[in-house]
Amino acid sequence: MTTDAQAKRHYEDIVVGAPFEYGGYRVTRNEIFEFAHAYDPQPHHIDEEAAKLSLVKGLCASGWHSCAMFMRMFYDGVLADSASMGGPAIDEVKWMKPIRPDHVLKARSTCVEKRVMRSRPAVGICKMKHEIFNQHDELLMTMENSFFIAVRNPAPAVGTEAQR
Amino acid sequence: MTTDAQAKRHYEDIVVGAPFEYGGYRVTRNEIFEFAHAYDPQPHHIDEEAAKLSLVKGLCASGWHSCAMFMRMFYDGVLADSASMGGPAIDEVKWMKPIRPDHVLKARSTCVEKRVMRSRPAVGICKMKHEIFNQHDELLMTMENSFFIAVRNPAPAVGTEAQR
Repeated sequence: MTTDAQAKRHYEDIVVGAPFEYGGYRVTRNEIFEFAHAYDPQPHHIDEEAAKLSLVKGLCASGWHSCAMFMRMFYDGVLADSASMGGPAIDEVKWMKPIRPDHVLKARSTCVEKRVMRSRPAVGICKMKHEIFNQHDELLMTMENSFFIAVRNPAPAVGTEAQR
Repeated sequence: MTTDAQAKRHYEDIVVGAPFEYGGYRVTRNEIFEFAHAYDPQPHHIDEEAAKLSLVKGLCASGWHSCAMFMRMFYDGVLADSASMGGPAIDEVKWMKPIRPDHVLKARSTCVEKRVMRSRPAVGICKMKHEIFNQHDELLMTMENSFFIAVRNPAPAVGTEAQR
């Protein structure tokens, strides 16, 4: 591993309870339409007039688009300088308020639990809670998931011992 | 409401335990790259060589892209002819195997529970379990979520009575 790679944020650098704050993603009407036409063409994501009559009372981003925009912020704000290795699952997503055109999104992500995989001592798992806000500090979405991150100085595997 | 709207699948037409089967979404390398560059530019989604060295051992779709492709299938296969009204949350997503270029995705969605909102007798909630497979019948992803769907013949509100 090069020094550059070692300098990235590793498992050891993630502090449980210390939030990351990041963001600045400007939502546009065009991007809402574009994503929805590709992946989620429900009327309230592609048609202003139909959206007014819907439960969300106006055009809003697809929930999956909201997740994708969050992911882009999380990548730029946290993962890009981390030795991250992907993720296995999402534990929960709650869409609390619609994400509208001209919202500027920001997020706060907190590690609530971390551990090293017993079978793979070079891989850590961080369980995260994410909160996504707009520029008016309205909480729009929450999410819980886990991601894998490299351990900088892995201990030797202890699988055999642990099975004794 | 027009006859056309009434002819759509409503809350009353959803049968708990009776699966919907649908799909035929062909995953392409280009679409994997395009989504990843926009929303999830982790190396294993945008770089073939880096992907070979990653936990997923080869290029695969972003988990969020997988969700978006599922949503498109679910829209085309179920929602497009339903009186659906969006969804409030995702209870769980599990990415069990990587979704690769040239996978042809299909899905099975089963309503496991349904009820009418007490406060809004015209709105039903269906809790769904989804399974996403490729053309080799490998289970790639599972998901649990709920969606809102219009009730064709809503009963009068009983809020006051229920509170007695």
